[in-house]
Amino acid sequence: MNSNTRPVADPRPAFVENPEQADQQQALGRRIITDGIRTVFLVGCGGSLAAYGPSVYTLDNRVPQLVVQAMNSDEFNYRKPAGLGPTSIVLVGSHTGTTAETVRAIDTAKAAGAESVVSLTSDPESPLATHADLAFTDRPTKWAWDPKEIAMARITQGILDAAGLAASGFDEALAALPADIPNVFADLDPALHRIAEDLATKPVTYALGSGPMEGMARAFAMFYMQEMLWRHAAAYNAGEFLHGPFEMTESQAPYLVLCGEDATRPMTDRALGFLNRYSEHVHVIDSREFRLAGVPDGVRAEIAPIVMSAVTTRLAQHLEAVLDHDLSTRRYMFSVEY
Amino acid sequence: MNSNTRPVADPRPAFVENPEQADQQQALGRRIITDGIRTVFLVGCGGSLAAYGPSVYTLDNRVPQLVVQAMNSDEFNYRKPAGLGPTSIVLVGSHTGTTAETVRAIDTAKAAGAESVVSLTSDPESPLATHADLAFTDRPTKWAWDPKEIAMARITQGILDAAGLAASGFDEALAALPADIPNVFADLDPALHRIAEDLATKPVTYALGSGPMEGMARAFAMFYMQEMLWRHAAAYNAGEFLHGPFEMTESQAPYLVLCGEDATRPMTDRALGFLNRYSEHVHVIDSREFRLAGVPDGVRAEIAPIVMSAVTTRLAQHLEAVLDHDLSTRRYMFSVEY
Repeated sequence: MNSNTRPVADPRPAFVENPEQADQQQALGRRIITDGIRTVFLVGCGGSLAAYGPSVYTLDNRVPQLVVQAMNSDEFNYRKPAGLGPTSIVLVGSHTGTTAETVRAIDTAKAAGAESVVSLTSDPESPLATHADLAFTDRPTKWAWDPKEIAMARITQGILDAAGLAASGFDEALAALPADIPNVFADLDPALHRIAEDLATKPVTYALGSGPMEGMARAFAMFYMQEMLWRHAAAYNAGEFLHGPFEMTESQAPYLVLCGEDATRPMTDRALGFLNRYSEHVHVIDSREFRLAGVPDGVRAEIAPIVMSAVTTRLAQHLEAVLDHDLSTRRYMFSVEY
Repeated sequence: MNSNTRPVADPRPAFVENPEQADQQQALGRRIITDGIRTVFLVGCGGSLAAYGPSVYTLDNRVPQLVVQAMNSDEFNYRKPAGLGPTSIVLVGSHTGTTAETVRAIDTAKAAGAESVVSLTSDPESPLATHADLAFTDRPTKWAWDPKEIAMARITQGILDAAGLAASGFDEALAALPADIPNVFADLDPALHRIAEDLATKPVTYALGSGPMEGMARAFAMFYMQEMLWRHAAAYNAGEFLHGPFEMTESQAPYLVLCGEDATRPMTDRALGFLNRYSEHVHVIDSREFRLAGVPDGVRAEIAPIVMSAVTTRLAQHLEAVLDHDLSTRRYMFSVEY
């Protein structure tokens, strides 16, 4: 930890949606049901794969007629899952639109006769956007929070709508986030800075979550802590944590527990009950404390992981300041062949 | 690392199958297809959840009519996945047969009207065995390698058989393992000891695998390293590793890469190509080097993860000796409430 810490960067801007694309995303979701698609493959690497998490959770728990499978791009390419075929839609996500194995996944999908391939990327000129049957592009919001999560939320809403399962208020909630998330940041910034100061002094951080928050914990550990901040970290499902990794809980070890409002909340509460007895460095980010004035209560649980993703991004910005380590610096990515 | 290391324990014994149960396991597999089961849920915690890995990989890639979903027991209980219902079979696994949330999963499954609930446990008198519709019990092989993997392999063979997809030689291979695995241990013991000596000097170990070996890497990190040896560790899919965690690769950091013979092998080879350039402590366990005289070539790829599970168990025994840390010692499990 650097004693002369740098100032915390400004929060990333809100996503700016293209209204036409938002409509197309909902229409795609509806078509998945009305066309009788059986399997939706969600393909990508790293942060792009993690961005599918909240939608996987929602669809898996609510839409019996659909199978949703998120998979690393090369796992998809080499495995060619048995469920891939004419009743599949394949979504391919890559921020730059150039990730080689994700571009190849388009060929994998087409060779297997997938009904269609849809890309999620920031760059409409990229291979991913130009080779897919349909492309959703979020430029110019390159460094906004979670444009792919928002696109997926729109698609998911279309699916729920066509399946007769849509909760009212979701569109209203998405529309409110650009105003609400800055309030969440303003409320949490002091706490996030204290968490960053503590994590910066520790050799390894463990992040925990259940349900859709497991993926948020994993993304924080793998992409913010390891990739961007070069800090040891690992993430666990809160239930699995209590069946193995918890054995090495020590009073000085730091834990970051991401709590949501979904059905699995008792799992993180149980892990917290344990951790609070045996560690003195338990940090909690609880979506119940998110001030989301424009989000109707009935859809808070579904919106919480999207907001949590933004909040962990904000935590990373605090770590960037405390560690004096730029989030955009890479040793290997984009600079060596591998 | 302890300089006065203790002797390495004898390898665990081979599993001893009950032939009648082996037949029943294959029959269950066939019935899953002939009865038109749509979704098989594989439910458990920790090592019992990990034991499903090889079968999930095989079924996911080969049986288009079936959806296979492995899930932590409480995730299953709280989420009640949409695919759970009269066309589901639920397998529940627990070594002791007493894991509370796994026992509750039987109620979750029955309340949702699952076609049947099948338990995998060592104890025929346990709640898990007595409350399920059908119980497979592996007593008296309590500390053998992988009895649950073997039971799952039998069930998987039944599924493949009924689906017209069975490769010849699988039964022959399973029958050969009790003789072949000790040969693999004898060949690899010196190398495993050297790996253990190196890992024992490092603060954190990263384990990597692709396809079915990802689960083996995860089980090694979470259950052997963390739960039993109280050592920091984390595991990654080899493809995901290159999209984040690899940024903190350093010359002195240790990596354990588990290589299989399945379709995803190029993914671990790619990660190895990177690691061998930037780390001086890359350890490889490659199933191609397993001396498996009784395993026909055509089924080596499917058998490899079962053998790898036994080999990582053996590596843990070497770590037990080098670290002078008993594998059966627990701080919290079975001794405090949580």
